[in-house]
Amino acid sequence: MEEPKFIIEVSEAKSLTQSTNLTLTQLLPTIVKSSQPLARVPISKFHVAAVAVGISGRIFIGVNVEFPNLPFHHTIHAEQFLLTNLSHNKETQIQYLAVSAAPCGHCRQFLQEIRGAGDIPLLITSDLEKTAKTEFTSLSEFLSHPFGPHDLLPKHVPLLLEPRHNDLCFIEIEGPITNSIKPHLKDAALKAANESHAPYSDSPSGVALLDSRGNVYKGSYMESAAYNPSMGPVQAALVAFIVGARDGAAEYGELVEAVLVEKEDAVVKQEDTARLLLRSIAPQCSFNVFLCSSNNKI
Amino acid sequence: MEEPKFIIEVSEAKSLTQSTNLTLTQLLPTIVKSSQPLARVPISKFHVAAVAVGISGRIFIGVNVEFPNLPFHHTIHAEQFLLTNLSHNKETQIQYLAVSAAPCGHCRQFLQEIRGAGDIPLLITSDLEKTAKTEFTSLSEFLSHPFGPHDLLPKHVPLLLEPRHNDLCFIEIEGPITNSIKPHLKDAALKAANESHAPYSDSPSGVALLDSRGNVYKGSYMESAAYNPSMGPVQAALVAFIVGARDGAAEYGELVEAVLVEKEDAVVKQEDTARLLLRSIAPQCSFNVFLCSSNNKI
Ligand SMILES: [Zn+2]
Ligand SMILES: [Zn+2]
Repeated sequence: MEEPKFIIEVSEAKSLTQSTNLTLTQLLPTIVKSSQPLARVPISKFHVAAVAVGISGRIFIGVNVEFPNLPFHHTIHAEQFLLTNLSHNKETQIQYLAVSAAPCGHCRQFLQEIRGAGDIPLLITSDLEKTAKTEFTSLSEFLSHPFGPHDLLPKHVPLLLEPRHNDLCFIEIEGPITNSIKPHLKDAALKAANESHAPYSDSPSGVALLDSRGNVYKGSYMESAAYNPSMGPVQAALVAFIVGARDGAAEYGELVEAVLVEKEDAVVKQEDTARLLLRSIAPQCSFNVFLCSSNNKI
Repeated sequence: MEEPKFIIEVSEAKSLTQSTNLTLTQLLPTIVKSSQPLARVPISKFHVAAVAVGISGRIFIGVNVEFPNLPFHHTIHAEQFLLTNLSHNKETQIQYLAVSAAPCGHCRQFLQEIRGAGDIPLLITSDLEKTAKTEFTSLSEFLSHPFGPHDLLPKHVPLLLEPRHNDLCFIEIEGPITNSIKPHLKDAALKAANESHAPYSDSPSGVALLDSRGNVYKGSYMESAAYNPSMGPVQAALVAFIVGARDGAAEYGELVEAVLVEKEDAVVKQEDTARLLLRSIAPQCSFNVFLCSSNNKI
C-alpha cells in the first residue's frame, strides 16, 4: 500500500484488487491497518481505524481524533469520522464495514442513524489475529434490541447519508456590515447547515473553516436518536479539514477563520461549545456566527 | 405506590413486597412506571426511568434529564443518572436492572464501567406489554463483543461503584483570599474529586452545589473507557441535587453557589464546560474553581 489516505477512488480500489489478487473484502484488513497511523490520539494512544466500502465502490476511511484540555465528549470516534466522510462525499450506503477494534456502544448507537443499519456486515480486524478467517457479522448482532430513529421518527424522514435540504436561509440583520467575512465561507456554512441531520431537535447547523491556503472545509451537525452520540458541526468540519488538507498532515494552527450557521430559535445551540472547542485547538482562528431560519416557516 | 422518589430503603422495599404479595423483581415494572414522571425532558418528551436493586437490598431510581439551549452531549440518560445515584450512595453492585425502554448504545457502554457488567440481569419493561412475562436478560446480550475497561486498564484498578480515594489535596495559591467561598462547599467538591472515576485520563474532578436553603450536593466526574459517554461533574452534582432536594421538585434556579475542583495539570479540563452548563441553567449561581494535585506525586 502507498501512503494512507481517507478516500480510495473506484479505479484505485480496482487496481489494488488486481495487483494483490484479493477481493475488496479481503483487502479491508490491510487498509484498516495502514490507516491506523492517521489517528490523532494524544490522550489514549489507542489508534482506531474504520473503513467502509460504499455502494459506489469507493472506499472511505475514518480514524479517532482526541482533543486534550477538553472534556471527552468532544472526541471523534473512528466510526463517526467515517460516517462524516461518507456523508460529505454523498455516499448513501455502506456495503461493508471493517474496524480495527470492537466498536464502542456510543458508535454502535451512532451507526443506527443509517437506514438498515442492522444489516451492515461488520468485520473486527483485531479478531483476525485470533481466528485467521475473514468473517463479517451483521451489525444487529452487536447491538441487539436497538434503540434508534425508528423509535422516534416517521418513516419518511431522511436518515443519515440520505439526501436532504433543510430550506434554511440567512436572517438579514440590521447593523454593522461584516465585510470582513468572506461570503463564500458564509455560504459554505449555510450549505452545511442545509445538509445537517437534526430531526430530533429540529436544530440543524453547519460550520465552515478557512485555512491559511484559502481552502474551505465544511461540516454538518449530525444527530443521534440517543442524543449524546451526536456529532458537533465543528467536529464534522474538522473531519473535512483532516481529510482534505495536506494528506492528513494538516495542523489546526493553519485554520484562520470559522463560521457557524445555526437557527435563531434552535433548541440546541452550538455557538458557545463551538467557540470553546475552536479557542482550545486553534486560538488564532477567528469565529463568527450567523443566524438562519427555515423558509418553510415564513 | 406513594409519590415516586429516587431511593427506596430496604425496609420500604420489604413492606412493598409484603403489601403487594410480589417479589422484588416482580415489583420493578411498577416502580419503573411510577418513576417515569420524574424525568426532565423538555426536548424529547420521552420519559425514561431506570431502576436497580442494589446488593444492599435498596432500590435506586434514575431518570433522563435534558438541557435546552445546549448541545446534546450535556444530556443525562436515565441509566447514567441511576449509576450516579448508586455511586453517591456507596452501593457497590447491581442485583437487578429494569429500564422503561431499550437502553441506547451510549448507556450500554457506560454500564461497562461496572465490574462484571455483562452478568447484570436486565429487564426492558416496555417489552412486557408485548410478552406479558417478566424475563431478565444478561446485559452481555445487549452489547456482545464489548469494548470496555478490560481493554485499557490493569485488573486491580477500581471500576465504577468500587471504593477509591484519589489522594488529591488543594494547591495553596498566593493571592486574594477567597473568604466568600464557604469552606464546607470547597471541601465537598474536593471529596467528590477524590471519589471520581477517571482512570483513562487521570483527571479526576468534582463539583459541589449549594442551594438557597443551605444544602450542599456533590457530584464526581465518571469516565467511560469509550470516552464520550463519560459523565461530567456538574451533571453528577445535578443528579445529587435532583435526588436530594425537595423530593424531585427542585429547580435549578435555587442554586446559589458552585465549586469545581480539578487537577492543575489535568489532560481533561472541566472548567469551561462546567461554567457553560451552569451559566445556561442557573445564571444566578456563582462559580469558582479550585485546583488540586495528587499527593502521590509530591
Ligand atoms: Zn466508538
Ligand atoms: Zn441511553
